[in-house]
Amino acid sequence: MREFDLALVAGAEAGIEQERLASSLDLLAELVRADLDGVNALILERMQSPVALIPQLAGHIIAAGGKRLRPMLTLAAARLCGYRSGRRHIALAAAVEFIHTATLLHDDVVDASDLRRGLATANAVWGNKPSVLVGDFLFSRAFQLMVEDGSLEVLAILSHASAVIAEGGVLQLVTSNDTATSETAYLDVISAKTAELFAAASRIGAVVAERPKAEEQALTAYGRNLGIAFQLVDDMLDYSARQSELGKTVGDDFREGKITLPVVLAFGRGDEQERRFWRRTLEELEQREGDLDQAIRLLRRHAALSDTADRARHYGGLARAALDAFKDGPEKRALLETVDFCLARGY
Amino acid sequence: MREFDLALVAGAEAGIEQERLASSLDLLAELVRADLDGVNALILERMQSPVALIPQLAGHIIAAGGKRLRPMLTLAAARLCGYRSGRRHIALAAAVEFIHTATLLHDDVVDASDLRRGLATANAVWGNKPSVLVGDFLFSRAFQLMVEDGSLEVLAILSHASAVIAEGGVLQLVTSNDTATSETAYLDVISAKTAELFAAASRIGAVVAERPKAEEQALTAYGRNLGIAFQLVDDMLDYSARQSELGKTVGDDFREGKITLPVVLAFGRGDEQERRFWRRTLEELEQREGDLDQAIRLLRRHAALSDTADRARHYGGLARAALDAFKDGPEKRALLETVDFCLARGY
Repeated sequence: MREFDLALVAGAEAGIEQERLASSLDLLAELVRADLDGVNALILERMQSPVALIPQLAGHIIAAGGKRLRPMLTLAAARLCGYRSGRRHIALAAAVEFIHTATLLHDDVVDASDLRRGLATANAVWGNKPSVLVGDFLFSRAFQLMVEDGSLEVLAILSHASAVIAEGGVLQLVTSNDTATSETAYLDVISAKTAELFAAASRIGAVVAERPKAEEQALTAYGRNLGIAFQLVDDMLDYSARQSELGKTVGDDFREGKITLPVVLAFGRGDEQERRFWRRTLEELEQREGDLDQAIRLLRRHAALSDTADRARHYGGLARAALDAFKDGPEKRALLETVDFCLARGY
Repeated sequence: MREFDLALVAGAEAGIEQERLASSLDLLAELVRADLDGVNALILERMQSPVALIPQLAGHIIAAGGKRLRPMLTLAAARLCGYRSGRRHIALAAAVEFIHTATLLHDDVVDASDLRRGLATANAVWGNKPSVLVGDFLFSRAFQLMVEDGSLEVLAILSHASAVIAEGGVLQLVTSNDTATSETAYLDVISAKTAELFAAASRIGAVVAERPKAEEQALTAYGRNLGIAFQLVDDMLDYSARQSELGKTVGDDFREGKITLPVVLAFGRGDEQERRFWRRTLEELEQREGDLDQAIRLLRRHAALSDTADRARHYGGLARAALDAFKDGPEKRALLETVDFCLARGY
């Protein structure tokens, strides 16, 4: 694990330290607790298969401490829309989590070139093929859950979202290792790869509650903007998180040559010598001792991390505003608090 | 390319030489020609994406000369069931082909260990990740086509089939390189991995024609048994095809250490020295010059290829019998001829 100046890192985004104090997922978790137990039970039931490796591998990733943020959005959005009597939101929240897990498993797939770069991923244990096939299995299970629910509208939303997520993944591959990626191109990637499922998960809440299109649209906007904010904070954390609080290695994106918004901003604002640094480290993946520290110094020199945080707050604001249409109450407060959490997590 | 005694190979399965003369897909192709043009146009339309790499890569595999056997089954089965007026069978046949293509792309995913064994696969050009993601994209497109069709029954059939296919793939991984695999375990693998989609593709024809369950079941049985016969012949061809007629390298399964029915039979009938040979070459993947020739000699010594052909004919017979319920006519004749084709192809 690389070491760098934690004091420097801790100081720089003090602007949202304020938010940290007040933000957690407590309200949301409390609100959907019973429903989420139902989701977890259903996930456990539906990932079973006579082929033992499937629940083994699926269980490994599903149990790996995910926050269940996306299914919680479905549950809370359904409640917000007044859905009280049924259990449809539980089945569909499980479908959302299965789709998310399938994309995680497929993201784990590596090429020989990645291995040469020394990456360790979950599928190192089993190889690529089981990750791909168990992902396919969970993806199919997601559709089976939707078919049992019987709503063609939900099926349309989530099959479309799945296509968009895959497109986003390919777009990311095309732009990865390309330091000339524009901010717009980058936002297209995360809007598809991350925010589409947040949007769909939230929207489904209004669909099961059979609410007017305006509420579906409001929840779609909430989810999409929340997802973008979430991903921007994730990008920032990769260069700044305190290890102990994140459980994620700082510098993963850097080592993979992933182009994220902080890099896009610093590259655009850097001089020719700095751009050579970014090209060498992220395009050519020629990385040396001290390069990650140097990258962090350059990001800070150009305020790239704090500007990424600013943009995250902007999208967080849009997510909050999207809920204006709904009356105040515990559900709305929980969803607003979720925005704060996504902005402040890790600090 | 390895060379071996073609005369020996050509002679051994002379038993179905008879069938070769009479068998082709001509009747089937003629019957569904116009519909298949519609399927191909729809495939081309729906594989488009603003992300250019997606149609590039999907086009590469979709254009790669597939026979479109599975979508033709859907088209012909719909005709057999008297479906005349609509175009639903065209959209669903395209969905079936998308699912098939997605599984092919996901089958192409390799591990570093495969590369060390010197395998060249389609994804060598692009790496694993695009194969996975474009597969996901096509899989999602398949579901979007089904959602537009609007039949929850079709969605249930194909989401179930997709889950079973993934299970079959994992089961194959678990049994691969295990020479102690039983014939039953092997049939479980191919019934899931290959025959499930043949069965679903055929069944859907009866569903769009809104025929009674008995016809759905008959077409399911036709497709399943045809799929098993198809795969058994494929397994046999891997040890016996004339290169020029197959466009496939003889010995692929052997080099990958894949356990197929010919090997299961020869291993079970072999003495301890022969079993050591199979373990060394297929479990430990320690292969030397001349091993493929030796494998073919052992398969022939124990009649493993001709017995595999016998079993294929058995399942082909079951497929034919499943059509007894239907009246004679060009559709039925085309589907019967398809059985002959699957049994005799490559000879």
